This record gives sequence, structure tokens and C-alpha cells, in this order.
Amino acid sequence: MIVEVIAVGTELLLGQIVNSNAATIGAALAERGLDANHQQVVGDNLDRAAAAISLAIGRADAVVITGGIGPTQDDLTREALCQATGRDLVFSEEYADRLRGWWERRGREMPESNVRQAFHPDGAELLENPKGTAPGLALEHDGTLVFCIPGVPAEMAHLLQAEVIPRILEAGGDESVLVSRLLRSWGKAESDVAEILDDLFTGSKNPSVAFLASQGEIKIRISAKAADHQAAVNLIEPVENEVRTRLGDAIFGADDETMEAVVLNLLASLGLKIGTAESMTGGLVSAALTSVPGSSEVVMGGLVAYHSDLKHKLLGVTDISMVVDVDTAEQMAIGAKDLLGVDVAVSVTGSAGPDPLERSVGTVVIAVSTPERTQARELHLPGDRERVRAYAVTSALQLTRLALLGKWWSQ
Amino acid sequence: MIVEVIAVGTELLLGQIVNSNAATIGAALAERGLDANHQQVVGDNLDRAAAAISLAIGRADAVVITGGIGPTQDDLTREALCQATGRDLVFSEEYADRLRGWWERRGREMPESNVRQAFHPDGAELLENPKGTAPGLALEHDGTLVFCIPGVPAEMAHLLQAEVIPRILEAGGDESVLVSRLLRSWGKAESDVAEILDDLFTGSKNPSVAFLASQGEIKIRISAKAADHQAAVNLIEPVENEVRTRLGDAIFGADDETMEAVVLNLLASLGLKIGTAESMTGGLVSAALTSVPGSSEVVMGGLVAYHSDLKHKLLGVTDISMVVDVDTAEQMAIGAKDLLGVDVAVSVTGSAGPDPLERSVGTVVIAVSTPERTQARELHLPGDRERVRAYAVTSALQLTRLALLGKWWSQ
Repeated sequence: MIVEVIAVGTELLLGQIVNSNAATIGAALAERGLDANHQQVVGDNLDRAAAAISLAIGRADAVVITGGIGPTQDDLTREALCQATGRDLVFSEEYADRLRGWWERRGREMPESNVRQAFHPDGAELLENPKGTAPGLALEHDGTLVFCIPGVPAEMAHLLQAEVIPRILEAGGDESVLVSRLLRSWGKAESDVAEILDDLFTGSKNPSVAFLASQGEIKIRISAKAADHQAAVNLIEPVENEVRTRLGDAIFGADDETMEAVVLNLLASLGLKIGTAESMTGGLVSAALTSVPGSSEVVMGGLVAYHSDLKHKLLGVTDISMVVDVDTAEQMAIGAKDLLGVDVAVSVTGSAGPDPLERSVGTVVIAVSTPERTQARELHLPGDRERVRAYAVTSALQLTRLALLGKWWSQ
Repeated sequence: MIVEVIAVGTELLLGQIVNSNAATIGAALAERGLDANHQQVVGDNLDRAAAAISLAIGRADAVVITGGIGPTQDDLTREALCQATGRDLVFSEEYADRLRGWWERRGREMPESNVRQAFHPDGAELLENPKGTAPGLALEHDGTLVFCIPGVPAEMAHLLQAEVIPRILEAGGDESVLVSRLLRSWGKAESDVAEILDDLFTGSKNPSVAFLASQGEIKIRISAKAADHQAAVNLIEPVENEVRTRLGDAIFGADDETMEAVVLNLLASLGLKIGTAESMTGGLVSAALTSVPGSSEVVMGGLVAYHSDLKHKLLGVTDISMVVDVDTAEQMAIGAKDLLGVDVAVSVTGSAGPDPLERSVGTVVIAVSTPERTQARELHLPGDRERVRAYAVTSALQLTRLALLGKWWSQ
């Protein structure tokens, strides 16, 4: 099945918004093995929208149109679809009632302009949109399936997954389900992960194994197609175990678990409180920990000892002539435990750039102090100031995780 | 002039990357008053790329093609352009020498595969690309200007501004220059700014006044077209003064000045050191201040007193039964001055959600303490946890700026 995406909206042509919908739809199609040859963007113009739809119907098996189905005069995808398919725009009292019902269930009266959304090309089916008020549309023309879905990304994504893709797959004779598992790793280079998992990436079609690097984190996605959910899970399980075995401690979580949430959960399960002592990261480690709702149960706080005097005065670092240093980092972590009254502390000191501080830019020393032990680790991180700081934060949390698991590193 | 954008690349169809180039080009065209009716995306496929180019040449005055002009076998925009315009692909020894020269000037030998980039449609002009190795192309066909520029955003943006837009404007008879000035504001609602500047937005064509809201900051862009740079600046100046007068202290900077850089510059000019005392923001205020290179000259550090015990123990807050509170915020700021040994401190306490803490979600109390005075302010910020925290950070920096300017607010 060849699927074409048309985005309707003058704001896209003017560059006021980026066409992320086309990418979302493209990725969802690719994941299900559906082909895409073209994308089009047109403005809020009846003739040009109709021509774009005709062009797509002529060359694709399914057309997904986003945008232009709201209640305003600008929204003319319904009319364009009529023009492209030679259908009449008809009004459905039943659809109008359903629209009113959706508003009523939210305790509000429907603005009369919204009744426009009960107009639709003759023979089109309305697709219920639980995330918003504009229903989607589905019809078939000259053997091509045509869908109109909203341009609002959350509404678009819902109707895409709930209605559009299942219908396209069914029309193409594919009734399988797809299940994906995301494993999240930190601390291994992209090229190392590629090499370690190479035979899985290339050798396995179902489940397929792919990886995605972003912000230093490498995510491994295992996707299986099967007749039902459990059969797909059964295909994923042995591959997940194999990936976990090969990558070991680099895997810190799965699916939507963030590193900070994993660390907080570990602390909570151990009944330990944490604090931070930061220099180079300037508060980003404590900000990451406190970004998680409920973090106040385990996070006491932190000291940003940006100036060396504070490292000495408040954390008890004895020698501040060199601060990008293993001894300094360890003393910072131990000092933070005392100052903040916590069980576990993590410290970060380093050279973020753009100018080197004592050591070359990207040199970072992190220490973790637990009730049992204190140990530092020196890292060399790539990139500019912003990236070095961001990578240092996740590295600090990863070392905290490993320390809490008793998996201390060798210096 | 009607301009059409074609992006070439299978990775766009697969949703592996978002088509931000189309938005960048669309915005740049709109800024210069050039119209756009269509955008197309095709994969790395010769026939489909050629068909897309033919379609665009038939309906636009200028066509901008991005992507597919690198040195690999996948890069077939050159061949597609030949097919669409009926031209031969020719080799230019002169272009090959120029390519070798670009590599040599970087102290490297050109990989032989790059010689592919010296092939071009007969009659096309090569556009020098100082940001990368793939030169752009320009030709005219059936009265339509056709440009090929790289897909790498930085290279694309450079050739767009340096070559493509000036040539399109010249072909359209427009030889003016455009100068823009961005004024950055914080603390006024989008609807208030819209109302205060309404007559400027609608009444002035040259300079034009537009605004853009992002992350709570409202940017006002004043753009003037004139025969030369100075004439454009002369048009902008009175409008800039008018906007500054009407928005007053809400304007914190211009062009690429961030709020944190403005605060740091003020502190440096006054010879003052700053520290922070954060609860709800968890370190984000100090992280923002230390994100600026060279901030160590004025930022001593900060205390993240997330747990109330630390507010009492380290900052001397006397009553921790209520912490989202004016007295608490003021005591935190004063306490931070003592603890950190700084001249100026800013404190933040509040209820970030998702569950209310003492007060409704979004209630934030910020205090600033300078050598002269200490004063708090209560704010009510919109949004979820992440947004409330982010808005609290910029609000804290804005109040610090106002305090340093002696523009204290009334509580």
C-alpha cells in the first residue's frame, strides 16, 4: 500500500509552524511497512487543496489529509474533498446531534459555528475524535482510501493510530498487531552499540531491532508483528533478554522511564535521601531530580558551589587550587552529605567550556557517596558547553544508579 | 513572485527527520513578501524527483530544491534536474578544481567521490557553499528560476540568504534590503501586548511590526525594507522607541540577548556577585545563570533548599509551616546572601504541581535581596509542572533585573 500525506494550512507555507505531522505520520507508516512516495503541503485555498487531493488520489492507494477541518471559514478541506471527488457537501442532522452531544458531555453548549463540522462529502464516514471537537472523515474514491484528520498534533496522532492505520492495513490485507519495546541505554557510544548489536539489527526481521540516538541516550527499539498482542510479546522477550545481556549496566530503563525517575525509584525503595553538590552543571542535576513529581519524598536539595570558595567554605574541600579533580569531587560529595543531612550525595565538577578550566573542555569528574562508600570517576564528554553540561547530568545520575545497585566502577 | 519548495530525501518520507528546512525557507520568503502556494517532499528516486521538479516549474516563478546534492549515489537531484529540464549532465574541470581548492584550503585532500559534485546540468551556475562541500546550483528553465541547495540546515540557510533570495528578489524587480530588529519582552500576556501594540501591528506596513510568543517570552519583530541598510534602520528607530515606551520595563533585551545574559551584564557593570535560593525550581535559576560562558565572574552559587528543613537550617527561615509565602521567600533570599557571601540573592518558592502544595498550582513567590532592599512578589503562573518551573525561572531573573535597575515593584 502506497500512502500519501497532504498537510493543509497557510501557516505551514509561511513557516510559522513546522510540518511535524508529516514526520509523525511518515514514521507511523514506515513502522507498519506502508510505503510513502510523496508529501504535499498546500495553503487554505479551495482550488489548490482540491488539486492536491486529486493528484494524490491518482497515484496513491491511501491519502491522509491533515488540517483544515475545524469550524472556521478558513477550514475548507471538506469542500476541497467534495471538489476533488465530485461529491456533494451534505448535512447530517445525526452528526450535528453527535457534535452537540460531545460538547454537552463536557458541560458546555456547542458554539453554533461548530455545526459546520456536520457537513461532509456525501458518503463519508465521520471518525470520532475523543481528543477534540473536529471529527475525522473517511471515504473511498476510485479505489483509494481518503482520510481527513485534524492538524492539532495530539488529535492527529490519536486518529492516525486508532482509525487511519488500522483501516489502511485492513484494506491491504494485513491484520497483524505491532508491539514495540524500547530499551534505554546510557554511557556506550553509538558506534559501540551498533557493533555490539550488529547481528540483531541486520539479522532479525520480526522482531525488528532498531536504534535511535538522541541527546547522548541510545534507545533500542524491538518491534514484533504477530496475530495478537501476546504472540508479539513472546517474540520480543528473547531478543530483549539478549540485548540486556549484551549491553549490561548501560540499560537503565524501558519505554517511558527517564533516568531521573529510575534513580528516584531506587532511592525510595532503599529508603535513602539524596542531595547534590554541583559546580559545572550549576544546578542541572538537582533540577533533573526535582523535575519528577513527588521527588520531595527523597530529594532534600543541593548546593551549587560554582565559585571555589564555596567548595571550601561549605563543602570542606581542602585544596581548591585544582577543582577538576578526583579528590575535590569526592570531598564535595562527602561535604554535601554533611551539609544537607542526606544518605547519598552526587557531585559534579569539570570544564564545560568554551574556554578550558584547568583541564581540557569536556573533562568532568563525578563522585557518588553512599552510606557504604565514596568514589569518583573522570569522564571526557564531547560537544559544546550546553552539551557537556547536559551529558554530565545524565552521567551523574547513571553513576548514582550504579552505586545504589552496588555496581561500583573501577577508577 | 510565486516560489515553490521541494525537499528531496527518503528520510523525510520515513519521518526520521522533520522538514524544518521547508519552514525556514517559508518564513524567509514570507519575510520578503514572496508568495508560496505549494511544498513537495519526494524520496531519493530519480523519476519521482524529476516529476516533482517539472510540476513545480510549471506552476511557480522560482523553485527551491533542498537535499540530494551530496557526493553519494543516493544524491540524484542533479540527475533529476537534467531529466526535468531536458539538459545533459556535464562535467566541469573548472568546477572540479574549485572543489579540490575548497578541500585544500581546509588542509585536506578531496575524497574522489566528491568529484561527482562537479557534474551539473548544462548551463547551471555553481553557487559557492562556504559552510560545506556541496555547492548549490542555479539555472533558469521556461522562465522559472531553479535553485538546488544542500539539505544540511546551516548550509541551506546560508545559501538561501546569500544567493537564492537575493536572486529571486532581483528577478522580481525588488532590489531593497530588509533589516529586522527583535525586541524581547517578559511579564505581559500575549493578549495584552496584542492590544497595546494593535495599531502598530495593523497600521504599519514598512516597517512592519509582528510578534511571536514562545515559552512565555513575547518577541516583537520590527522589519523595514529600504534602498540601503541605513535607510532601513532609520525607518525602524522611531517604531522601536514607540514600542519601548509602550511596553516599558517588560522589554528586557534585543536581538539575541537572553534574560540571563542581561542580568549577568547588569551585575558585572555594578560589580555585584549573585547567589540563589531555590525550592520549587530545584536549581533551574542557577543553571540558567551558569549557562552563560564567563558567568563565574559574578555567580557564586546557590542553595537548592527543596526540603523545608534546609530552608530553616541553612537559610534561617523561621517558620516553615507555610513555605509558599512572602516571608519565607524574603528570608530565603536574605539567608542566601549570608550563606553564600553574595551581594544579591534571588529566591523562589511555590507550588509547581501536579498536586497543590499549600497554595494552588502555579502560585510562585519570588524575592530579591540587594544591598539596599529585600522584596518579594507573588505570581500566578499557567501550565503544567514543567511550564510553571520554566516561567518561574524567567520571572525570577526579570525581577532581579528590575531590582538591580532600582525599579522595585509594588507588592
